[in-house]
Amino acid sequence: MKRDLKVVGHSVARVDGIDKVTGMAKFVGDLVVPGMLCGQILRSPYPHARIVSIDAAEAEALDGVAGVLTAADVADLDPYYNGRPLIAMEKAHYAGEPVAAVAAADEQTALEALSLIKVGYEDLPSSVGLEEALRKGAPLVHDDQKDNICGHEHVGKGDVEQGFAESDEIFEDHFTFPMVYHYSMEPHSVIANYNEEGITIWSSAQHPFQVQEDLSRIFKLPVPKVRLVIPYLGGGFGSKSYTKFEPLVVALARKIRRPVRICLSVSEAMNTVRRHGTKVRLKTGVKRDGTLVAREAEIYLDTGAYADNGPQVAVRAATRILGPYRISHIRSDAYAVYTNCGGAGSFRSIGGPQTIFCCESQMDSIAARLGMDPAELRLKNLLRKGEELRPKIKAMDANLASAFKRLVRASHWKRRSRKKNAPVGLACGATNAGGQPISVSLVRLRADGSVFVMAGSTEMGQGVRTVLSQIVAEELCLPIETIHVTGADTTITPYDRSTGSSRSTTLMGLAVQAAVGDLKKQLVRIGAEAFGVKTRQVQFVDGAMVCGESRLSYGEALERRFGVTAGELIGRGYVGPEVAPTLPVLWEVGMGAAELDVDRETGQISIRSYISVADVGKAINPSQCVGQEEGAAMMGIGHTLFEQMVYEGGQLVNSNLVDYRVPTFADLPREFHSELVENGDGPGPYGSRGMGEGGIFSVAPAVTNALARATGVRIHDLPLTPERVWRALKGK
Amino acid sequence: MKRDLKVVGHSVARVDGIDKVTGMAKFVGDLVVPGMLCGQILRSPYPHARIVSIDAAEAEALDGVAGVLTAADVADLDPYYNGRPLIAMEKAHYAGEPVAAVAAADEQTALEALSLIKVGYEDLPSSVGLEEALRKGAPLVHDDQKDNICGHEHVGKGDVEQGFAESDEIFEDHFTFPMVYHYSMEPHSVIANYNEEGITIWSSAQHPFQVQEDLSRIFKLPVPKVRLVIPYLGGGFGSKSYTKFEPLVVALARKIRRPVRICLSVSEAMNTVRRHGTKVRLKTGVKRDGTLVAREAEIYLDTGAYADNGPQVAVRAATRILGPYRISHIRSDAYAVYTNCGGAGSFRSIGGPQTIFCCESQMDSIAARLGMDPAELRLKNLLRKGEELRPKIKAMDANLASAFKRLVRASHWKRRSRKKNAPVGLACGATNAGGQPISVSLVRLRADGSVFVMAGSTEMGQGVRTVLSQIVAEELCLPIETIHVTGADTTITPYDRSTGSSRSTTLMGLAVQAAVGDLKKQLVRIGAEAFGVKTRQVQFVDGAMVCGESRLSYGEALERRFGVTAGELIGRGYVGPEVAPTLPVLWEVGMGAAELDVDRETGQISIRSYISVADVGKAINPSQCVGQEEGAAMMGIGHTLFEQMVYEGGQLVNSNLVDYRVPTFADLPREFHSELVENGDGPGPYGSRGMGEGGIFSVAPAVTNALARATGVRIHDLPLTPERVWRALKGK
Repeated sequence: MKRDLKVVGHSVARVDGIDKVTGMAKFVGDLVVPGMLCGQILRSPYPHARIVSIDAAEAEALDGVAGVLTAADVADLDPYYNGRPLIAMEKAHYAGEPVAAVAAADEQTALEALSLIKVGYEDLPSSVGLEEALRKGAPLVHDDQKDNICGHEHVGKGDVEQGFAESDEIFEDHFTFPMVYHYSMEPHSVIANYNEEGITIWSSAQHPFQVQEDLSRIFKLPVPKVRLVIPYLGGGFGSKSYTKFEPLVVALARKIRRPVRICLSVSEAMNTVRRHGTKVRLKTGVKRDGTLVAREAEIYLDTGAYADNGPQVAVRAATRILGPYRISHIRSDAYAVYTNCGGAGSFRSIGGPQTIFCCESQMDSIAARLGMDPAELRLKNLLRKGEELRPKIKAMDANLASAFKRLVRASHWKRRSRKKNAPVGLACGATNAGGQPISVSLVRLRADGSVFVMAGSTEMGQGVRTVLSQIVAEELCLPIETIHVTGADTTITPYDRSTGSSRSTTLMGLAVQAAVGDLKKQLVRIGAEAFGVKTRQVQFVDGAMVCGESRLSYGEALERRFGVTAGELIGRGYVGPEVAPTLPVLWEVGMGAAELDVDRETGQISIRSYISVADVGKAINPSQCVGQEEGAAMMGIGHTLFEQMVYEGGQLVNSNLVDYRVPTFADLPREFHSELVENGDGPGPYGSRGMGEGGIFSVAPAVTNALARATGVRIHDLPLTPERVWRALKGK
Repeated sequence: MKRDLKVVGHSVARVDGIDKVTGMAKFVGDLVVPGMLCGQILRSPYPHARIVSIDAAEAEALDGVAGVLTAADVADLDPYYNGRPLIAMEKAHYAGEPVAAVAAADEQTALEALSLIKVGYEDLPSSVGLEEALRKGAPLVHDDQKDNICGHEHVGKGDVEQGFAESDEIFEDHFTFPMVYHYSMEPHSVIANYNEEGITIWSSAQHPFQVQEDLSRIFKLPVPKVRLVIPYLGGGFGSKSYTKFEPLVVALARKIRRPVRICLSVSEAMNTVRRHGTKVRLKTGVKRDGTLVAREAEIYLDTGAYADNGPQVAVRAATRILGPYRISHIRSDAYAVYTNCGGAGSFRSIGGPQTIFCCESQMDSIAARLGMDPAELRLKNLLRKGEELRPKIKAMDANLASAFKRLVRASHWKRRSRKKNAPVGLACGATNAGGQPISVSLVRLRADGSVFVMAGSTEMGQGVRTVLSQIVAEELCLPIETIHVTGADTTITPYDRSTGSSRSTTLMGLAVQAAVGDLKKQLVRIGAEAFGVKTRQVQFVDGAMVCGESRLSYGEALERRFGVTAGELIGRGYVGPEVAPTLPVLWEVGMGAAELDVDRETGQISIRSYISVADVGKAINPSQCVGQEEGAAMMGIGHTLFEQMVYEGGQLVNSNLVDYRVPTFADLPREFHSELVENGDGPGPYGSRGMGEGGIFSVAPAVTNALARATGVRIHDLPLTPERVWRALKGK
């Protein structure tokens, strides 16, 4: 039965929009906890060094200093999490690693105190960057390991040697992708308090319940003694996934027994997490008719000094290098590599942009050599719905061809590409997304008709509160203003696995929808009794239950239930593995087409037009989907044209907005358009599928493909700085 | 099936005990809200006066003053609630009524500012006290009323005239009961904040959800825009029921747009709420054999200037005057009366002590005149289980005779009363209690085995968190340390009607028990599937499900449900009118026997021994029950021997601990013993029934009966000050 949707599918205004534009919305940096001090971190200047001594006496004696934390203060704890210590223990493993932390009355005093801490270092040989770390005989980042490999994922299918033997043409290319930074508006910020009651922290954390578990383990406290309260986040993009520096702030608060806040500077945040820089060798065998036959991939990811979720990035990369294509023979190996650099971790589509850049660049090379239209080549090889990309993974659940045809049409590909040397290119990808399906939600209906939704998803600008409000408003036929979504508070909000991997609309959306369904069941029983009819005869219309001429508002229903207009009804919703017995929860589909302006004199590229296509299943809020898609594409433009974190002499030398170039409004494509494909075939509410990551990964290959088409120059290394492009054009 | 209870029925330590004794427990006065100012209230010196002018200019100009609130500031609001305005509007109706309020940087500045506010009053004739207010032609407290009657309850049954005609003896007595104050350790305290997000208040409120609704109406904001957070309360006893001065603090916060706290002094709190002073005429007709035949009662209750819940107190008093006895013919009228005094409201057993004092005093007079043993007279007339006290009220649900026999036995009544002029007396009562049955609760089980109980009951020292924890620990076979009961927060905690009327163990207890039951159903399904058995074969043992040799811990159950050790299961429990289709929810049973020392030279009475008997149905926590019973009896000793609020010239003149005498440890009976009757026949969990109010009302009649037995002097007026006793003895 097709339903006439009144709220879902409409671009309603963000429920937190007014809070945000008026400055009422509170971020960690806005909060004031009584008695709170200011914390600052002293960081290692060496990429690899033994800490011989720390003398904090002078700093501690400074007026206004409450205390200095060093490794000695955490001897009674279990200070490791995600492969890293909360503070450098015996050695520092990257330049920028926390060695001490100060709590003081104000920032100036804290900074002055940092300058008074005397640390004795013994410089050690270091492996900064992939080249160095993978070199035979390279210094070991961790000397209890036999090499610098931090994680390895192998994906196999068929017989690759046989596949290459059966191929008519073989392509082998090498690619590199730079380290890049998320650059969310708000760097990581944490307020911690530690007292007899336990730990309370306010953090910019995307995964509050996982941080809670880490802190419980590190500080040896029962889980209920650790409370995380998550206000709004000023962007995340994966940078605030898992536990970041929360344990350090808690340890400092524990030492001084006062609340303390540390807000990282951008420079510190860049040293805390970034995207993996990557080296890829990609070899593909094809038939003359364009059929992909065999693929071999070797991927090295620069994880930095500690694992974080580098191994998981390798796991994804090994599959994502395959693209959304039917390939009979596969051998893909991805390695997360320790280096003496700041850590890498989650970043919008982990391992996606780095590998899809390679896959989609090579697809155009293949098309060019075979004399095929690259769109045709892709259409020929795209997985059909229900086909498996590789063993032990959920079959493709989306209609890729329909989305790709939409891209071809929307970008006027046929007309535009017909012209010789037209600066146009396209690319596509589908990534296994959705994370782990564990989300629990409560929906509470009060007698005044207001509804509280308790959902642990972190609102970090992606609009999750709006989407969840829409779902509840739709299901209960209520105006969206009556719906109130609470933020995450681990003591109060039901468990949610994480916010990321395009899982909130789908998985938390399902949990909320289930909770509303559970609530409606309870309402319907009251309504049926009131009307003297069967439950299935009760309809929901305009905030009430209706049957024929009879009408019972929700307030009246509660009055029937509780005798007076009071009380409340509570629906609960669970999402578990049953929604995706085989992962991924969903395939996320993103495609893009670019048209460039290339200044051959300077090598400067600007994007004249960019069309992004997302298969969203169903757009719960179309304008928010478009916003996500445009944001993702702009981020893609960043790493395609400008962004790279530069290490020199073991030091990250461009950790600021002057030297690290992010896209600005001036870099917006002149034509910038997003198309939403809505086949209603996603696993989320109303057939929605996760989105928000898919917009990022087609940008780089679409642009390099356009550049190659226009100039004949194929660049395998990002970003496409004017110098790199100019040299390539010159060297042609 | 009799269950072997491991936690319930045991005197486990209070779950908040360590917090309380170490000072970690936070009360409103301990909280610090950033930017919070200090508020003070200017009060009318006149019991009745027109406010001609208010000039706050000088106060507002004082350095450190943020603002002054007067009636002019609330013109856009709907400032009335429970019959009173949040600030005196055109007139002040009692000496002590708020006329203006100041917010300033500190208390000294606020007090100085109060002294700078110039208020012009026009003194009006006033009616202070019942005598004055009921006098023909008395000044009207509210000139839009035809008289000073604020509420009237009539209870009728049979034909009273006929009943008196059929009686062999008729007794008619007049009694008075003083105004008394609750004297909880913490006077009323409120912090309010008002901004674009709405109202947030931290309050010492017993009924947070009802205050929320009042504030929503007064300030014309949707209910979800009003948030009440309730920390621990330092005692309530009814004084913090309903909305007290929260609206005034919110209005002040709204004016200054800053958080502000007002903590009342004891003197201010005594002007805010107290127990109704009472005048009663009681006429009873009996047969020669002691059978009660007819009763006529006329009760006047001094409600003060505004209604608050005075009408409800009248409703209860008209029934409570009947005692727990079988009487064929009844005419009872209770009147709440407006007077130009500070308001009266709820107080432990509303209308109970005032009326049971009369009923039980007269029972002894009847016994004396008929030459019967007062215990025998009572036993003869006590309602049997299932008998109706009066129409339209739930039949007696307790075995009164068993409790009364327990009192007789425990007090060695037969032996002690045999002696002529023995200073011993006893009394008993059963009161309709439990309030309205509307409570909702959630019980959440996390994968680490910890359990969060979300229950809106206010912890005010009565031990509700401990009792709820015990119920959950019992049902889930978990150690009590793993259970965490959250405090009330109207945004987070499910709806609960109120904390009071002995309803939390029974009603919230049932809601929590239902929620655990709902949770267990979900667990059992997982367990049965894991064990491959039927759900009824799954047992709960030591924090796990068990079937034969198989065992599944709760963590393992969650792992089965969610694929990893994560997620949570949530049980919900509702309590509605179905638990008590006819009110009361429960009959609360209290009985007591006193033995006195009477100093005939000075008139001073001290209590040598006091035995209190409570029918608790089932003592969830025996030592907490005993604590409640002793506390109630001590409060009863207060109004029996010492306490009375004295008005002179329209002014409350003894609103401090020097002039208002409360019992101290020196006044403890030398023998002080509580007996808990556990017939398992209450409506609450495990057969419990409400308690905590029943201990208060037998004290006064037991003492006056003992005095009469010892001296032949029957005193009808409380308290039994030495002067009053001495005069009575002298006048004999």
